[in-house]
Amino acid sequence: MSAIEDLVTELAKLPGIGRKTAQRLTFYLLKQPADAATRLADAIRTVRERVTTCGVCGTLTDDDPCAICRDPRRDASLLCVVEEASDVTAIERAGRFRGRYHVLGGRISPLEGIGPEALHPDRLVGRVANGAGVREVIIATNPSMEGEVTATYLQQLLKPTGVRVTRIARGLPVGGDLEYADGVTIAQALEARRDMAESD
Amino acid sequence: MSAIEDLVTELAKLPGIGRKTAQRLTFYLLKQPADAATRLADAIRTVRERVTTCGVCGTLTDDDPCAICRDPRRDASLLCVVEEASDVTAIERAGRFRGRYHVLGGRISPLEGIGPEALHPDRLVGRVANGAGVREVIIATNPSMEGEVTATYLQQLLKPTGVRVTRIARGLPVGGDLEYADGVTIAQALEARRDMAESD
Repeated sequence: MSAIEDLVTELAKLPGIGRKTAQRLTFYLLKQPADAATRLADAIRTVRERVTTCGVCGTLTDDDPCAICRDPRRDASLLCVVEEASDVTAIERAGRFRGRYHVLGGRISPLEGIGPEALHPDRLVGRVANGAGVREVIIATNPSMEGEVTATYLQQLLKPTGVRVTRIARGLPVGGDLEYADGVTIAQALEARRDMAESD
Repeated sequence: MSAIEDLVTELAKLPGIGRKTAQRLTFYLLKQPADAATRLADAIRTVRERVTTCGVCGTLTDDDPCAICRDPRRDASLLCVVEEASDVTAIERAGRFRGRYHVLGGRISPLEGIGPEALHPDRLVGRVANGAGVREVIIATNPSMEGEVTATYLQQLLKPTGVRVTRIARGLPVGGDLEYADGVTIAQALEARRDMAESD
């Protein structure tokens, strides 16, 4: 196989990258100065060599513990539970959450044969029960079937600890359009309605 | 900058890849076995190290001359002129053309200060005039303003050689919809209409 074909094949394995896009990217890299391609190749190598899992929260990080777990300004009494490290990035991007995280590394999915034990529930219980002062656990698993099952499981799991367990709100996405929203989302948005004085 | 941020930045430089997609790809590479990322990094390095320009047609290739120029079954009397090596791939994908190629490496663009000399017109004239038996030159530059200017220039350039110069057809894309086609394309499609017995 030629070097061009080889790169097209590797790029086309990436999610959301079809063969045509892979070809376009390959020719783009061939037209750029050689060091642009080298920087990208190095960045891919480095990310796999250097990035590890934070021993405290389980997110992906260069340093262990991660920058968020080390930051004394982050509120340790507020723990946000997410499925994946990419969810931490998404919430951090929003810039509103000042607590800490707990990354499950997945969600319960009977169809894929993923049970609760894959999420290392003892690690989460340990963090909540060890006297580190967690007052509230916000379950921010995805608003999908699996995410809801996982949320319910975690709520039951944490009940004996007496900690407050909350769930992120479901509703219409900001900037969204009622006309194009699905019925389930509209129903949830109606059910979770708040008095307007209460909202900010 | 962290290794994750670094890779996101490098990926986001690619055309059509925004920051969110770059983040998604980064986390994807982190979740895959390490050798998947290594293979991609190696393929990027190799493509820049190994791929060169074909000394005959100017396309990008591992070998010089390229596989198409070396293939004795390709019709040397038919020369298809394209702007970029990626256009060769696009035409080869269609699987209909059995002649050879000539890659200009760009198109005339007064706005970007690219004049005819950037296309090495002497190389094309040399290939047509050197007695290698080129009977027809198909100008397959893009159906854009710059592509048309380039096509007209090449037609004038080749006139003294006496070779037949043709232009790929413009019209409605197959599978396209009249309702969504722009007026210029519809006008071209009407003008270039053919008797139905003639078409295949």
